[in-house]
Amino acid sequence: MPVGTQATVKGVTAAQLRETTATLPDVTAQMILGNTYHLALRPGHELIRKMGGLHQFMNWDGPILTDSGGFQVFSLSKLNKIDERSAVFHSHIDGRKIDLTPEYSVEIQESLGSDIAMVLDHVIALPASDEAVIDATERSVRWAVRSLNAATRSDQARFAIVQGGLNETIRAQCARDLAAHPFDGFAIGGLSVGEPPPEMYRIVKATCPHLPEDKPRYLMGVGRPIDMLEAIAEGVDLFDCVMPTRNGRNAFAFTDEGPLKLRNAIHKDDPRPLEDSCPCPACQHSRAYLRHLFVTGEMLGPILLTIHNLTYYQRLMHQAREAILAGTFLELLERHRALAAPKEM
Amino acid sequence: MPVGTQATVKGVTAAQLRETTATLPDVTAQMILGNTYHLALRPGHELIRKMGGLHQFMNWDGPILTDSGGFQVFSLSKLNKIDERSAVFHSHIDGRKIDLTPEYSVEIQESLGSDIAMVLDHVIALPASDEAVIDATERSVRWAVRSLNAATRSDQARFAIVQGGLNETIRAQCARDLAAHPFDGFAIGGLSVGEPPPEMYRIVKATCPHLPEDKPRYLMGVGRPIDMLEAIAEGVDLFDCVMPTRNGRNAFAFTDEGPLKLRNAIHKDDPRPLEDSCPCPACQHSRAYLRHLFVTGEMLGPILLTIHNLTYYQRLMHQAREAILAGTFLELLERHRALAAPKEM
Repeated sequence: MPVGTQATVKGVTAAQLRETTATLPDVTAQMILGNTYHLALRPGHELIRKMGGLHQFMNWDGPILTDSGGFQVFSLSKLNKIDERSAVFHSHIDGRKIDLTPEYSVEIQESLGSDIAMVLDHVIALPASDEAVIDATERSVRWAVRSLNAATRSDQARFAIVQGGLNETIRAQCARDLAAHPFDGFAIGGLSVGEPPPEMYRIVKATCPHLPEDKPRYLMGVGRPIDMLEAIAEGVDLFDCVMPTRNGRNAFAFTDEGPLKLRNAIHKDDPRPLEDSCPCPACQHSRAYLRHLFVTGEMLGPILLTIHNLTYYQRLMHQAREAILAGTFLELLERHRALAAPKEM
Repeated sequence: MPVGTQATVKGVTAAQLRETTATLPDVTAQMILGNTYHLALRPGHELIRKMGGLHQFMNWDGPILTDSGGFQVFSLSKLNKIDERSAVFHSHIDGRKIDLTPEYSVEIQESLGSDIAMVLDHVIALPASDEAVIDATERSVRWAVRSLNAATRSDQARFAIVQGGLNETIRAQCARDLAAHPFDGFAIGGLSVGEPPPEMYRIVKATCPHLPEDKPRYLMGVGRPIDMLEAIAEGVDLFDCVMPTRNGRNAFAFTDEGPLKLRNAIHKDDPRPLEDSCPCPACQHSRAYLRHLFVTGEMLGPILLTIHNLTYYQRLMHQAREAILAGTFLELLERHRALAAPKEM
C-alpha cells in the first residue's frame, strides 16, 4: 500500500497512482493507506464524512485502509498519557488535547469510510521490560475487542494488531488471543521502529504461525524490498511503507539492479532510463534528465521518482505473487538477498 | 506558452502538460518556453545536445521556443556590463563570468535545438532617459541582425525582439528596423516589468502596426488573462508567462468567474470543483479538498492548481481564436474587462 497520510500520496495524482499498476496483468486496483490521526486533525473526519467520505474526498476509487492513530500517538506526541480507557495526547499541529479511545478511533474511521479499519493499539518504545511489553500487549488485545464491539458499519473490514515487542512468546500469545475474535485480518505492529532487520524477521517468523491461515496478514510500516520478501516468505500478505515515496522525493530510485542515487555525478550524462523495461513516466527520460531535475531543485524530480518507486514496488509485489504461484518464490528471494547490501551506483 | 525555464514546466509531467489541451478541438500540440540562460548554466547546452536536444531531454514532442538570455541578464545578474560586443555577467548559481554575445546565444539555442530561437536583446531598467533607451534599442537591432547572420540551422525559426521602453516613437522605429530583415516572427520585449497595464497596452498598440501582418507576434512575459486579451485585440498572437504556474503553486486558481484563493476559509467545506465544466484533474476534486492540500502543505495542491491554471489559459486562448473566427472577440474582451478587477473569493 502506498502511504497517503493526509488524503494524498505525496506528489501523485489519482490518475498517476492508478497508472503505477496499469501494465501489471490482473491488477485492477491497489489499496492505499490513510491516517486516522492526521485526517482527524486536518481537515477533520466530520468534514470528510460531509464530503462523501475519504474515497470521494481524495477521488480514489480503489480500496483504502486507515491506520488507527496508535502508531502516531507513539511517534508524534511527546506528551501522552495512556491508561486503560484511552490515549490522551496533544496534537502536533496546535497542541490541542485529544482523548483517543478505541471507540473514538472506530468512530473516526467509520466517518472516513475506509474499506479496512485498524484497531487502536498501544505501541511502546523499545527496549522495554517484559512487564511493560506484556502490559501494553494485553491492553492492545482488550482495546481490539472494544473496537470490534464498537463497530457499526457492515461495509468496513476490521484488522487487529499483534503487539509484543521483540519477545516471541508475548507475540505468539497476543496473536492467539486476537485470533480468537472475528477480525477480518491481522496486522503485526510495533516493528520497523529501529530494530535490526534480522530481529524483525525473527518476530514475524514467530508470529505468523499463530495467525489464521485464511485471513490476510499485514506487516505494518515495512519496508525495504528485501524486508517485504523475507516477510512474504513467512506468510505476510500486505505492507505499507513511506519508503518508495519518501526515498523518491530524496532522489533515491529502486531498480531491479539495486538502488540508484540520482544526485550522484555518475548519472550526469547517462542517457539510459532508470530501468529499460519500466513503463513509468520517469523511465521515459534519461538518468541525466532526472539528475538535472534534482540538482536544480525542480518539483518534477521528486514527482517522477515517487511514481517510479511506486511502480517498482507494485511490480515487485506482483512478481512475488507470480513466483509463489509458479513455485519459484525462493529464487526471487535469493536474488533480492544478493542485492540487499546496497551498492552506491 | 507554459514556461519551462529549466527543461520542465514546474510540477507537471509531459503527459499532464499534453492533457491541458486534450479536450480542445483542433489543438494537437502547444508550444512551451525554455530558457537559454538557465539551461546553459545547468545542465549545460552541450550536455543537452549530447542527449539529443531539448525535446528529447525533457520528452516534449510539441514545439519549444527558447528565450535568448537577454531578459535574464537584465533580471538576474547584479553585476553585468553590456557593450557593443556582448553582455558580460556573473552566473546567479556560482558567480562564474559569462560572456554572452548574440552569436553565442544563437550557438546555445542551436545546441538546444528549439523550434524557435529568440535573438539576444538589450533590456534596460525603466525609467530611463530617451538617450539610454535609444542606445539599447539600436544595439538590440544590431544584435538581432548579428544573430540572423550567425544562425546555421535551417530547422530553427528566428524571432526578433522589439525594444524601446515606454516610448511609442522609439518602439515604432525599432519595429520598422527589424521588419526590414527576414525574421520568422517578431516579439515585443521589455514590457511587463512593473509598468501599469495601460502603459503596456499603449506600447503594444503603438508597435503592432509596424510589424508584418503575415508573421507571428509574441508579447513576452505577459500575463494576466485580461492583458493577453487586450494584446490580442491589438494583433498579438503568442504569449509566455509564469503566472498560471507560479500562481497555481501559491493556491491561486483562475476561473471563468474570476480568481479563487484556495487558502481562504470560505472554501473549507465547499464541495464544488473550481469550475464545473473544466476537464482537468484538479476539477475532479472539491474546493474543500484542494484547500486541505494547501493547508497541510501537500505537493499535490501546487501540482493540481498548476494543471488547472494551464488548462484554463489554454482554454482562454482557444476561446479567443474561436471568437475571432466567429466575429465575437470584442464580447469576450468585454466580459474579461468586467472580471479584471479581481474580487477576493
